[in-house]
Amino acid sequence: MVHEIAKREDDWSRWYTDVVLQAELADYSPVKGCMVIRPYGYAIWEAIQGTLDRMIKATGAQNAYFPLLIPESYIRKEAEHVEGFAPELAVVTHGGGKLLEEPLVLRPTSETIIYSMFAKWIMSYRDLPLRINQWANIIRWEMRTRLFLRTTEFLWQEGHTAHATHEEAEEEARKILDMYRTFAEDWMAIPVIQGRKSEAEKFAGADVTYAVEGMMQDRKALQVGTSHNLGQNFAKAFDVTYQTREGRREHVWSTSWGVSTRLIGALVMAHGDDIGLILPPRLAPVQVVIVPIWGSDEDYGKVWPVTEKVRGMLSGDFRLTVDTRDTLSLGRKFYDWERKGVPLRIEIGPKDVSRQAALLCRRDNKAKESVPLENIPLTVGKWLDDIQRSLFARSQKLLEEHTYRTDRYDEFREMIEGEGGFLFVHWCGSPACETKVQEETKATLRSIPLESEKEEGKCIVCGKPSPERVYFAKAY
Amino acid sequence: MVHEIAKREDDWSRWYTDVVLQAELADYSPVKGCMVIRPYGYAIWEAIQGTLDRMIKATGAQNAYFPLLIPESYIRKEAEHVEGFAPELAVVTHGGGKLLEEPLVLRPTSETIIYSMFAKWIMSYRDLPLRINQWANIIRWEMRTRLFLRTTEFLWQEGHTAHATHEEAEEEARKILDMYRTFAEDWMAIPVIQGRKSEAEKFAGADVTYAVEGMMQDRKALQVGTSHNLGQNFAKAFDVTYQTREGRREHVWSTSWGVSTRLIGALVMAHGDDIGLILPPRLAPVQVVIVPIWGSDEDYGKVWPVTEKVRGMLSGDFRLTVDTRDTLSLGRKFYDWERKGVPLRIEIGPKDVSRQAALLCRRDNKAKESVPLENIPLTVGKWLDDIQRSLFARSQKLLEEHTYRTDRYDEFREMIEGEGGFLFVHWCGSPACETKVQEETKATLRSIPLESEKEEGKCIVCGKPSPERVYFAKAY
Repeated sequence: MVHEIAKREDDWSRWYTDVVLQAELADYSPVKGCMVIRPYGYAIWEAIQGTLDRMIKATGAQNAYFPLLIPESYIRKEAEHVEGFAPELAVVTHGGGKLLEEPLVLRPTSETIIYSMFAKWIMSYRDLPLRINQWANIIRWEMRTRLFLRTTEFLWQEGHTAHATHEEAEEEARKILDMYRTFAEDWMAIPVIQGRKSEAEKFAGADVTYAVEGMMQDRKALQVGTSHNLGQNFAKAFDVTYQTREGRREHVWSTSWGVSTRLIGALVMAHGDDIGLILPPRLAPVQVVIVPIWGSDEDYGKVWPVTEKVRGMLSGDFRLTVDTRDTLSLGRKFYDWERKGVPLRIEIGPKDVSRQAALLCRRDNKAKESVPLENIPLTVGKWLDDIQRSLFARSQKLLEEHTYRTDRYDEFREMIEGEGGFLFVHWCGSPACETKVQEETKATLRSIPLESEKEEGKCIVCGKPSPERVYFAKAY
Repeated sequence: MVHEIAKREDDWSRWYTDVVLQAELADYSPVKGCMVIRPYGYAIWEAIQGTLDRMIKATGAQNAYFPLLIPESYIRKEAEHVEGFAPELAVVTHGGGKLLEEPLVLRPTSETIIYSMFAKWIMSYRDLPLRINQWANIIRWEMRTRLFLRTTEFLWQEGHTAHATHEEAEEEARKILDMYRTFAEDWMAIPVIQGRKSEAEKFAGADVTYAVEGMMQDRKALQVGTSHNLGQNFAKAFDVTYQTREGRREHVWSTSWGVSTRLIGALVMAHGDDIGLILPPRLAPVQVVIVPIWGSDEDYGKVWPVTEKVRGMLSGDFRLTVDTRDTLSLGRKFYDWERKGVPLRIEIGPKDVSRQAALLCRRDNKAKESVPLENIPLTVGKWLDDIQRSLFARSQKLLEEHTYRTDRYDEFREMIEGEGGFLFVHWCGSPACETKVQEETKATLRSIPLESEKEEGKCIVCGKPSPERVYFAKAY
């Protein structure tokens, strides 16, 4: 029953898959490229959803739901959009036993269907800004898939907003980017770099794509969330106009933004260790597991009342479970919860009871301490806060230690091909240099910092002048 | 801007559509048969979801997520299942620009994909019972669609459980049926009839289908929720077995159950009036709207502080909003919230302020009362409870007044074709008699009561002996 998890050092990629499967986050499905999100993985998604949903609503957005099926012609209305998404489309050709007059694609993202509705709903400046969010499944035909990171179907949230001016749309896109940064850092305990994407990396149909990027333990980048300023591209494609205060008709300015179930993959790769998952307490479905320990009926009589007492002290404030399974050995129980990344374990055995104490064990650094019963609620709260902070600090250290400035392309290549990390280098801005880097090193331009110190320099590839440094890295 | 809503008496069907559109619950989409659920309609769905999700989790079920795309061959594995669903399937034939080797269908329900996973996860009796719930979108190709009631795509929850014995599965199916009854009655304020479906009406693949049926104001039945005892049908089709305590391998026994966004249609048709929607307070996204009234800056100076005070008194305990729009007339504002079915309106004008009071107005019976400010929180709580109860009582009265016992088929036909309602009549149990009724009257067999008084009688159609009465009605 117990399968081993590969060591990160030996086989990072197998380690990742082992952890996802062993912690029962997800499973392969019989459908190529599609996964099943198992209850424990889905509980993490519910924690992410619950938090982000509150944050999104606080920006003034309202949830709604738009059709999964989109007429193929809609996808074609925005030139860049169709170019970007055409290769990834799944197409419904038959419905109710008949060939459809027009094929329908499964939404690879919902701009097109949403803008066709915005055209109907937006009349005047009084209808603006309009902020809509949708929690939905998305289909993108992927050739090489990996659980959570790249699957044909995934779950996400997609925000879509329409504004009267370019400035407002820009402000919205940046505000949301900041919301994602807050979520990544304060909830996921993953420090991120905020920045703009290059032309090559931006969303198909956007004027500007912003993103937050985190560093995984293998020093590769993972895009945690993205926020697009769409300009008037979709407004023009779907003729979404509004009447200004002065009575003119103008196209709206819009944004879209999203995060997906790949965040669960990010949590695994940012914090996990060779035993398995380590979850930040603020997103852990189970924050505390209580394991009562007894060998005899006499012990049980002592241990059980204390277990109930501790459960009672904690259950209002923390998400907790009591492991009463009698089919598993103690060691197996401990391992089960460690593998699942539960931040704190409380052991209660006859000796603990005789001391009126319980043993608290941290998942992240393995620290243990016998804590008097009356201090448990306070200590649990403090320890969970401390775990949240120290996971962030550990990630922050990783990011700092593996972000390098270099001005030499040979050094750049050496770093990327060797230890990996974020390379903070001068780039002239030309797509040709960007492509060359990608072809030669597999590193992509991850982020053009939002407020970088202006620093004159020379492009690491071609030597032409560059006004600022940008981040390159290999990425998921 | 203000469109009229048809009167229920004049054109029930147009009234329904008008209310759905005017209350901004949903809108037509450019995709045939698919609707857009607008923010206000989605907020009702969120209220339904939030409540049911807690109830479902309390039964021991955990949420998970399974693929939308199902291999066509899977649907064919259970004979009755494919027969039932084949005519409604949407089929993906192309992905990533290529013809697929095997077509994929969009889930019309998830038994097949879920049982293929259960086969992998269930090993022994220790893994049972297994209770899984999924919130998801569903696609069934429908020819004649109506907003919320019958759409090609809809949202639902589907529970799937596996058990060691037939008895346990039966108990589960009944427990869930009871959960749906509680939800319908206590939350939706819709009294329901609990019963079993006939062979003709049961779920394709079930041994027994149970359902709760409510009566709409046009005296037609609407199935609010259904719960199926699937026996070992899917377990055998997907070879889902477990090892018993004694070491034998046996197929599991299973159930599935669900409710969908059609519940929103039920709320409209059970409670609405000629002005628009009337929402039961426990599911209303906005329970209280405060409308401050002022004609001058001086008035505003008096009214606004009191509005803020009342908001402060209520905001912790109730879902409320303050209507500060200055682009609408007062009458238009009132109508807007009435149309949307907000249970309580609080008007605060200069005269109210001078009396240190506010005017409370009920949506359901139009009652108004000037209430001293200090009494507002208590009164609002009492009135909301009262509205919830009186909506239920009104529905209960409708159900009782339009449920008829008759022993004559000519009277049966007259009732069904005339006023409508639930006809509680003797039926011999033969599909032929059931079909005859349906063909001649369009009424279907809605419910075979769970614990009916045994009453010897004669089938209303053929005159053969019948041991009990069953419910026939026209239905959505």
